[in-house]
Order: sequence, then structure tokens, then C-alpha cells
Amino acid sequence: MLTYYSDDHRLQDGKAELIDGRLEPCHEAPVRADIVLRHVRAAGLGEIVAPGDHGLAPIARIHAANYLGFLQTAWPKWVAEHGDYDALPLNWAVRGMRSVEPDSIDGKLSYFSFDAGTPLTAGTWQAVYASAQVALGGAAAVGGGERMAFALCRPPGHHAAGDYFGGYCFLNNAAIAAQAFRDGGAERVAVLDVDYHHGNGTQTIFDDRSDVFFASIHADPRQEYPFFLGHADETGSGAGEGATANYPLPWGTAWGGYEQALEQAVGRIGTFGAEALVISLGVDSFKDDPISRFRLEHEDFLHIGAAIAGIGLPTLIVMEGGYAVDALGVNVVNVLKGYLDAA
Amino acid sequence: MLTYYSDDHRLQDGKAELIDGRLEPCHEAPVRADIVLRHVRAAGLGEIVAPGDHGLAPIARIHAANYLGFLQTAWPKWVAEHGDYDALPLNWAVRGMRSVEPDSIDGKLSYFSFDAGTPLTAGTWQAVYASAQVALGGAAAVGGGERMAFALCRPPGHHAAGDYFGGYCFLNNAAIAAQAFRDGGAERVAVLDVDYHHGNGTQTIFDDRSDVFFASIHADPRQEYPFFLGHADETGSGAGEGATANYPLPWGTAWGGYEQALEQAVGRIGTFGAEALVISLGVDSFKDDPISRFRLEHEDFLHIGAAIAGIGLPTLIVMEGGYAVDALGVNVVNVLKGYLDAA
Repeated sequence: MLTYYSDDHRLQDGKAELIDGRLEPCHEAPVRADIVLRHVRAAGLGEIVAPGDHGLAPIARIHAANYLGFLQTAWPKWVAEHGDYDALPLNWAVRGMRSVEPDSIDGKLSYFSFDAGTPLTAGTWQAVYASAQVALGGAAAVGGGERMAFALCRPPGHHAAGDYFGGYCFLNNAAIAAQAFRDGGAERVAVLDVDYHHGNGTQTIFDDRSDVFFASIHADPRQEYPFFLGHADETGSGAGEGATANYPLPWGTAWGGYEQALEQAVGRIGTFGAEALVISLGVDSFKDDPISRFRLEHEDFLHIGAAIAGIGLPTLIVMEGGYAVDALGVNVVNVLKGYLDAA
Repeated sequence: MLTYYSDDHRLQDGKAELIDGRLEPCHEAPVRADIVLRHVRAAGLGEIVAPGDHGLAPIARIHAANYLGFLQTAWPKWVAEHGDYDALPLNWAVRGMRSVEPDSIDGKLSYFSFDAGTPLTAGTWQAVYASAQVALGGAAAVGGGERMAFALCRPPGHHAAGDYFGGYCFLNNAAIAAQAFRDGGAERVAVLDVDYHHGNGTQTIFDDRSDVFFASIHADPRQEYPFFLGHADETGSGAGEGATANYPLPWGTAWGGYEQALEQAVGRIGTFGAEALVISLGVDSFKDDPISRFRLEHEDFLHIGAAIAGIGLPTLIVMEGGYAVDALGVNVVNVLKGYLDAA
């Protein structure tokens, strides 16, 4: 098994996120990837490889040109306006407002985001570009014949839509990888999102497409962030009707309830006829995650890995969330081991 | 001239707002109303009166029942979830998301808001209810024959829409007063918003109505908060087409440019045929305002008052923004004096 990784993730090292009514140190921090990497190495799961540079074109297949332009140019504009500290947006275009891109940097930050938990920093563009390359490197390996690869992406991606960031995510690594599979010749691709939080960005990106199936198992948006997508009645729209499946689960869900949803999602992917599979792997469903409320145990992640292997498709596993830092390495490695033992 | 006022404004005393990427002490603070009151008293402009209690019904004419229920019950739910400190929302339903009211308190805060600059506190409901009563007291006086009254509202209101808060505003005092004029028999009512920031809430509330004309002079939303409403091409919709007029002005606008927009807005109100006038009075167009970028001088506010008097309608002046605390009393009193000298 190959693990794709880039040190550039460290360039996204925000100071604070707005959460629970306060600015707190960012849960999404460099230590997360460092710990996962250390555990992958210690477990002897195979080579750690650099992704190479696949360029901007495969990213631009998913993200809007004005959004990519914004991400590449925002930092100096922010510094000129406010000073050399992390940028956070101010307000958002909710119902009844017009979503028109403003000229000022504060306006653009607000326009291109959906929360105040995702600081844009001096190194954000370089870090998120590298994270997307990590996903693309993994996709290329799987497209080239590897049965499975692990893209140790950081920052994560599944909350990022085509033209907005939030939830610690700027570029949607899983969506970029899924599109790369399509562009590499796969007629149909499936994305299975097992992060605790709904993959609103990925769903939005593929909502009206029939060629990419999106399934997500997550905390019920009636209770949990991101609140405004992820209900069971969201099944895709237009040509994509029926190619989205959501499994919202209540706070407190343990393996019993989780396993049922996972079986259903796996079943739906089986009937879709995909030629490649992308996993959005969050391990914040773990019982001790500091910002989440499921109750999965270490060993349950072995079962998740085995279930993914059971789908029987060429698979790219893309790192998303998980904030119980001490447990992060064990839980991720358990998914990978579970996969490898069952494959 | 009567000034309506309630000490209950002090119950909204938030600790911090998200602005410029940081949590800073709230610009919208009790000292604002205290200073205005002191200057109104010192200038001998007339009696300060308590508004009486006009009840919830006139507020419910403008705000949705689920939103009012939320405001009245949010605090204990927040404390039970997080603890006894100010509440701020987490994320927002931007384009592509579904605006469905969640069950959890964090979800509701996100659903019923549009920024993270407006802390909900232990005393918020009592303060905003009192602020709305201050506007209703003033409207009753004007409806009863007073030529003009000043509603020293705090918290302000013009950013609050029918079912969301933001921009330091929870209940839209000016809209509640305008509706009270309508319900008191006025066939047509005009609202003129001279706050530095666009009155997005008021515009949204009356957008599709032909009986309430809304005109706003404000910093261009391409540059300035609230960014997502207030463009010149927003002229109302449906039955309200033509009953909204926006005058966005660039950063750096001084009296010359401001006066032209004011003359146009006054002219439009003149042809609308209103029977009563509500002024959303912000004095954050002042050159030294800490969060604004117009360049009005103290004496320009005399001219604003005179221009309002020139409209020749029974008028309620409702306090909105203005954050240059030392200058706030002078600027507000200048508007009132300008009005009284010209009336």
C-alpha cells in the first residue's frame, strides 16, 4: 500500500477558529497529519511517497476560476487591509440576500466562505494546493493499477464546495480525486464519506451529476454542523437524482447503529456500478473526539476498513477529519489495516 | 420634541464581536445610548419619556413566530449546552445549502443569524423587546399628532430581517414602527435609512410591498458590510417593484457626494405620497467612526436633520448605528436640532 503525503501541509497552521461562541486554538492543526504519518510508518503499511505536481488543471475541474483566483491572492490583500495575522470572514449571504462577489477583501472572504472556523493564513494556498496534489497522486496510483492508496491529505476537503471554504476545508480533495478518476477513463465513480460531519461540499459539487455517486454517513444536520445539508431526503437533483444517499445518525451513535448505515451505503455503491471508489475518511466518529458525539471504539475502525474492502473496487482513501489527536493514528491505521486484511 | 427611551437597553452588553478577523470588545455597547441621552438632555430638546408596553403583537407583525420563539428561549438552551457566556453562531446557509431550522441550539443560532458580530446574551431578549417598545412608543406619539419624535433605540434594528439577526440587530425597530403607522391608518409609509451600513433587514422585510417605500444611503456593498444587499439595481420585487431605492456611495464619501444622494432620496419620498416617515438614523457616516469610512463632519448632521424636516411628514427618528462614542451625542443632537430648526 502506498501513502501519499506532503510536508507542505504544515503551511496551514491557523491560530484560532470560532467554535462554541469563542475563538479557540484550531482543532485542525499540523500535528494531526504528523501523528497519522508516524503511525502509518510504525505499522509498516508500506512506502510513503511524494505526490508530484499534477498542476492546477485537475483542481480547476472542480473549483470555480474566481474562487481559485481568490485563494491565490487573498493573503496580501488581507495583510494590506488588516495586518499580518490570520484572516476570518465577517458575515454571510443567507436567505433573502444576494450572492454577488464583492470587491473588498473582507467582502470576498465572506462571499467565498460559510463559517468563521477556517482561518485563511499566509500559507493556506500552498498547503491546500499540496493537499490536492496528495489526493491526485493517490488517484494516479490507483488509476495506474494499485488496488488501494492512502492520500494523507491535510487540510481536509469535504466541506469545501466549488466556490466556498469552511469546516477547515478549502479545496475538495476527494472531489478532485473522483473527477480525476472520471477524466482518467472511469465511467462511474463512487464517493463514500464516513467523516462524522456531513460532506456538504462534495454533495454540492456532484449534486446534479449521474456519473458520481455520493454517500455520506454522518451526524444528523438537525443536531450537528454543518446543519444545512445532509438530510435523508437529499438524493441528488436533475440528472443526479438518485445518485446521492445520506445516512444521518443521532448524537450518541455507537457501532450498532453505525454498522447498519454503513451496510446500506455499501449496498447502494454496489448497485451503482462504479469503476473506482473514493473514501472521505474522517475518524471523528471516535468516542473521544473533542468536537463530535458518536461513540465508535478503536476496533470499529477495523470493521470500517473491512467494509470498504468488501466493496471490491480500486480505492483511494482520502484523509478528512478527526481531532482526538492521541487516538488519530491508531484509528486511521485501523481503517487501513482493516482494509488490507480483508482485501 | 419627545425622546423615547428605556434603561433596559443596558441588558444587551455583549463581551465581544467577530470583526477584522478577531474577537474585539463590542462596538455596540450601552455607553452609546447613555451618551446620546446625556446630550439630548443637555441640549434641552424636550422630555425623555418611557415607552410603555405595547406588547408582542406589533413585533409579530414584522418578525416570524419561530424567530421570536427562538429569541425568547435561546439563552437557557445555550447555557445548558456551553455555559454562562455570550453565544455566537457557528456557520451559515450560503448558496447551495438548505435553509431548514435545526433542532440544536448551535444550529438554531446559525439558522437565525447572518454574522458572528452579534452576541446573544442573558439579557438580549429583554433589551431588544424594550428597544422595540421604544420605537412603538415614538410611533404612537407621532400617530397621535406629534410632528416628530426620537426613539432612542438600543440595540439597533435595521440589519435584522423577519427571521434573522446580525449587525448588532435582533428586532427591526424601524420596520416595526413603520408597520405600526400602517396599522394605525397610514395608507403609505416611507423609511429613509441614513446609517452608514445598508439597512438590509428593512429592505428585505418590505421588498415585495407597495405600501412601504424604503430608501437607503450607505457605503457601497461591493466594499462594505453587509456586502450582500444594497446595490443600486435593487428596486423592490413583485408588488413592491419601484418602492425600494438604494444609494450606494464609495468609501471616502464626504458631504458633497452624500448631499446629492440625500436630495435624490428625499425627492423619491416626496413623490411616493407617504403619510408618515421613519428615519433609520445612524451617525456612523461621521469621519471618525472607528468601523466606517465616510467623512461627514459634525455640522453635516445639521443638514441631514434639515433635509428630513423638509420632507414635511410626521416623522419618527429611530436610533441605529454610530460608534465614535465621544462624537455620538453631538452628531445625533445635531440631526435633531437641524430638524427642529428647519421644521
